[in-house]
Amino acid sequence: MSLNTPNKVNPDLASERTKCTFNTLELTHHLDGGALKTEERKIREKYFLEDPELQSKVPMEYLSHKEKYEEAVRKACLVFKKVQQLQNEGKGGMDNFREILGGRLGSAILGDGNPLTLHFVMFIPTIMGQGTFEQQAEWIEKAWDCKIIGTYAQTELGHGTFIRGLETTAVYDPKTEEFVLNSPTLTSYKWWPGGLGHSANYAVVVAQLYTKGKWHGIHPFIVQLRDEETHMPLPGIKIGEIGCKLGMNTTNNGYLGFENVRIPRTNMLMKNNKVLPDGTYESSPSSKLTYGTMIFVRVVLVQDASTYLKKAVTIATRYSAVRRQCQINPDKPETQILNYVTQQHKLFPNIATCFALQYAANWLWDVYNEVNSQLETGQLDNLPELHATSCVLKAVSTADAALATYGLVTAMCTYEETALNHRVPFSKTVDWILTVLQTAAVRKIELANKHINDRIKSGQSYEEAWNNSSIELVEAAEIHGRIFIVDTFHQYVQKLDVSDSLKTVLKQLDQLYAVSQALKLSGHLLLFTDTTAQTIEKLQLWLEELLALIRPNAVSIVDSFDICDASLASALGAYDGNVYERLYEAAQKSPLNTDPVNKSYSSYLKPFLKSHL
Amino acid sequence: MSLNTPNKVNPDLASERTKCTFNTLELTHHLDGGALKTEERKIREKYFLEDPELQSKVPMEYLSHKEKYEEAVRKACLVFKKVQQLQNEGKGGMDNFREILGGRLGSAILGDGNPLTLHFVMFIPTIMGQGTFEQQAEWIEKAWDCKIIGTYAQTELGHGTFIRGLETTAVYDPKTEEFVLNSPTLTSYKWWPGGLGHSANYAVVVAQLYTKGKWHGIHPFIVQLRDEETHMPLPGIKIGEIGCKLGMNTTNNGYLGFENVRIPRTNMLMKNNKVLPDGTYESSPSSKLTYGTMIFVRVVLVQDASTYLKKAVTIATRYSAVRRQCQINPDKPETQILNYVTQQHKLFPNIATCFALQYAANWLWDVYNEVNSQLETGQLDNLPELHATSCVLKAVSTADAALATYGLVTAMCTYEETALNHRVPFSKTVDWILTVLQTAAVRKIELANKHINDRIKSGQSYEEAWNNSSIELVEAAEIHGRIFIVDTFHQYVQKLDVSDSLKTVLKQLDQLYAVSQALKLSGHLLLFTDTTAQTIEKLQLWLEELLALIRPNAVSIVDSFDICDASLASALGAYDGNVYERLYEAAQKSPLNTDPVNKSYSSYLKPFLKSHL
Repeated sequence: MSLNTPNKVNPDLASERTKCTFNTLELTHHLDGGALKTEERKIREKYFLEDPELQSKVPMEYLSHKEKYEEAVRKACLVFKKVQQLQNEGKGGMDNFREILGGRLGSAILGDGNPLTLHFVMFIPTIMGQGTFEQQAEWIEKAWDCKIIGTYAQTELGHGTFIRGLETTAVYDPKTEEFVLNSPTLTSYKWWPGGLGHSANYAVVVAQLYTKGKWHGIHPFIVQLRDEETHMPLPGIKIGEIGCKLGMNTTNNGYLGFENVRIPRTNMLMKNNKVLPDGTYESSPSSKLTYGTMIFVRVVLVQDASTYLKKAVTIATRYSAVRRQCQINPDKPETQILNYVTQQHKLFPNIATCFALQYAANWLWDVYNEVNSQLETGQLDNLPELHATSCVLKAVSTADAALATYGLVTAMCTYEETALNHRVPFSKTVDWILTVLQTAAVRKIELANKHINDRIKSGQSYEEAWNNSSIELVEAAEIHGRIFIVDTFHQYVQKLDVSDSLKTVLKQLDQLYAVSQALKLSGHLLLFTDTTAQTIEKLQLWLEELLALIRPNAVSIVDSFDICDASLASALGAYDGNVYERLYEAAQKSPLNTDPVNKSYSSYLKPFLKSHL
Repeated sequence: MSLNTPNKVNPDLASERTKCTFNTLELTHHLDGGALKTEERKIREKYFLEDPELQSKVPMEYLSHKEKYEEAVRKACLVFKKVQQLQNEGKGGMDNFREILGGRLGSAILGDGNPLTLHFVMFIPTIMGQGTFEQQAEWIEKAWDCKIIGTYAQTELGHGTFIRGLETTAVYDPKTEEFVLNSPTLTSYKWWPGGLGHSANYAVVVAQLYTKGKWHGIHPFIVQLRDEETHMPLPGIKIGEIGCKLGMNTTNNGYLGFENVRIPRTNMLMKNNKVLPDGTYESSPSSKLTYGTMIFVRVVLVQDASTYLKKAVTIATRYSAVRRQCQINPDKPETQILNYVTQQHKLFPNIATCFALQYAANWLWDVYNEVNSQLETGQLDNLPELHATSCVLKAVSTADAALATYGLVTAMCTYEETALNHRVPFSKTVDWILTVLQTAAVRKIELANKHINDRIKSGQSYEEAWNNSSIELVEAAEIHGRIFIVDTFHQYVQKLDVSDSLKTVLKQLDQLYAVSQALKLSGHLLLFTDTTAQTIEKLQLWLEELLALIRPNAVSIVDSFDICDASLASALGAYDGNVYERLYEAAQKSPLNTDPVNKSYSSYLKPFLKSHL
């Protein structure tokens, strides 16, 4: 059975597809990065998603927590074996890993998380980034061939973001040339790392380093957790999983405590800082370097935000074309809910956001690689901006605004020259929107700054004044993040070398994204720029125009994301639109439906019903 | 072991509690509706939550889907048996049912849903509301004593909100004096009703009535689904559960199809419409009456929104007092995250919202009971307003704005006289906020109305024009809903007979709720009223003042909600604040942690690790 080949397509969906004004294949190729990439992706999807061994006999959501983990380990081992086969055949290269670990293909196989992901995403990259040449020689091959499975243990029960506060200790003992690791408190237990519970047998552990009686801050150490033959936890290692969570229940997130665990001196990753055999500490040129791995994770998060949103809008748009509910005109049949303007308003700006986030992720990926190669040559100038922008983008794309304040420094530099010195009368262009948004951002930051200074003058410390003005600062950072995404989207579309028919559609999406953001921020525009009520009304009408323009292409745009049914894993969003048949079939897979009467009837329900006779 | 008696309270939480400026017991009594109600509640909580039979040996989230259902049936039967014992002893009355079915006590026992809830919430109330005196005599006692278990089957695969479109048919056969039920299409299958899968043996089924060859619209019928002895589905009944969902996985939501299922004529609920033995149809004074049960559900939804929010803010506020992260001043220790103004901004408006929603639910409950007793006497005048307001409140309290448009009719009537005819200069009062919000709402509705008329003039039908202006209409309805809640909150607090110290706190929360809503709607205020940038700045400073005023009482306010640990079911939110110990203990309950090495190691992981040697 092959993917996306339905028996019969729902007539409403079929009719939507005839209305398309552009070539969906051209858009698919554009989003994949070229026809060749599309072809490779499809081969890869076929190779993984049509392998019957990677199907579960019973859908995993019906299993117990323990059974889910066991099934996840089975699939994870098989997936990486298949990846190794591809690598051995010279097919695909790093793309295989990015796809299998990322949201598109990876989550199609293990929707609730892969217990071995951190081995590839954190363990190996950390050793590559922070190990010496000798350490890389010793560990990378073993890790790459999966002779050992590692994870990355940084976060503790008591400390996450504030990594300076980590409590795990690594004390150097020059007599044996070993570090002694300890968890001095309950809050110092490592907590959360994926795969740590029962999967990994090694970990990079971040701990406070002490040598010659002196403290030197946090450093990374390679620690063996379990016996390589029996998988039993080694002496002094207290380890387990942290239990059920709201999601990602097959990532095997674990906890880890140390009681006098000894590791060789050479297990400290020493590319940047060293402890010599006698215990002498030699420090690095920049302590910022240790952020590298975490920034990488943030880049992946922005990419995954786009991927998951693409899945969501594909499902929602197709279902909205199939689902009919209520009548707009009482003398006509029930209408597709996609015809309700309120529904279009929920869907189409999110379709536009898929493009916006993908272009932002592309930008971040390019800059990340550039900065990384600069780091190799000791050049650190661009690291702070990458750090700030990745924080803001992560925050905006995952709606966690608290981190966003870091981005403000960059914001001021970017806008000062551009936006403030001219008044621009309204025009129906993205450039106009960018100008007023930038003006609003700068004035918002200026106002927050004024409030900080007022508070300092009234006797508060700088830190208190900052804290007391932080609601405004976070809002300003959020505006900055949104401007960045609008700007990147607009620039990408301007530069694109695609057909006119496709360019028209992408320009509509570019405008829709910009107008939606401007309306979302209309309070700030009214407050901080000379935008009037009449202008806001014009923006609202422009938005409604754009919704109507995009309406006929909506299904075809999400079709172009080309997410196969196995990856969507949705009865409502499948390509053929046979939603009711698929819902009914999916219900039949519930193990509860194998017996007409569940055993709880005789055990509990019948005695209860009969107890009153 | 009794509830809420920790060994040792976290010192940060203990210190928070010493800062309280009011009597927490007074607030608890106020929220419960009096000291007696508090006492009854505590007795009830002890009776249920300390019963060891109502504990699960393994926390339910670790079980398989099937095991979860079986455990839920066990607990549900026990719970209702215990309720019946209370009733027999004359203790508690209807409050027992409201509590056991509602979000506070009910969700403490069965957090992922109770498979028998719809028997009490929909099956019995529908028979009481729509059955004749004779039908009530026949069914209510059996149902009340749980000799039968019913559910309410209205929604179908193809139709939810648009109930006129339901497809299930009930055709009257005068020869046998029976109705014949059929599911003519797949989309006509009943889909979603709680308890329908494997629990209920009866259901009220809503179907299109045909008699003497004529169609009469939807009507309710009592249908037996399963044999009362064997629980086997009766002939022609196609039944099962709909499978895993994102939540509420123990409510046993089911599907139901009919193939020539015959039921006696007297099983049609005939209080309002009748079919005589010869097939003659006699219609009711108002078809609106059938909405009664659904309105009841909406009232419960608003109540539960407040209950669940109380649980959430209790957990978040206590944890924010215990959790320390980063330093505000670099030379001081890490600070409680409750000291971050951004965190206060996330928490305190939500604390205020708990009160706002509870008062709104109280209002709705009173009006519901009043309208219901008016319905008994045939008076229908207030039904449309109850319907509209319950829709809007449900939408605002559950963030589903689509339904809210219904509320606009009421909005215009309410505001026309009050708000528009005078300009009110800014004052730091809730009354000022109410006035400007009402002005904005009316002008927003006027503008939407103008756009509808413009569109009609340009040739669109009324329905098209409405659809094309619906984004604005929904926004207007949302403003209306928010004004209603601000207003109700403010009126309740004005009237309260409580101590001055408590009144001060409640007034702060009243103001915080109003200011937060005004700032949330600041774009509309700037657009539609003479509110200026300077006024918005004053509102922002007022908000920040209120956060600082509420800060010392935050923990004590959520303490006053008096939600016991067993009901919170949260390691982070327990009364004693020992979050890290509780997190660690909770992890130990995972069945994965009973063995140091999971069996998947030998089955899958070891062969994978060793395959490269």
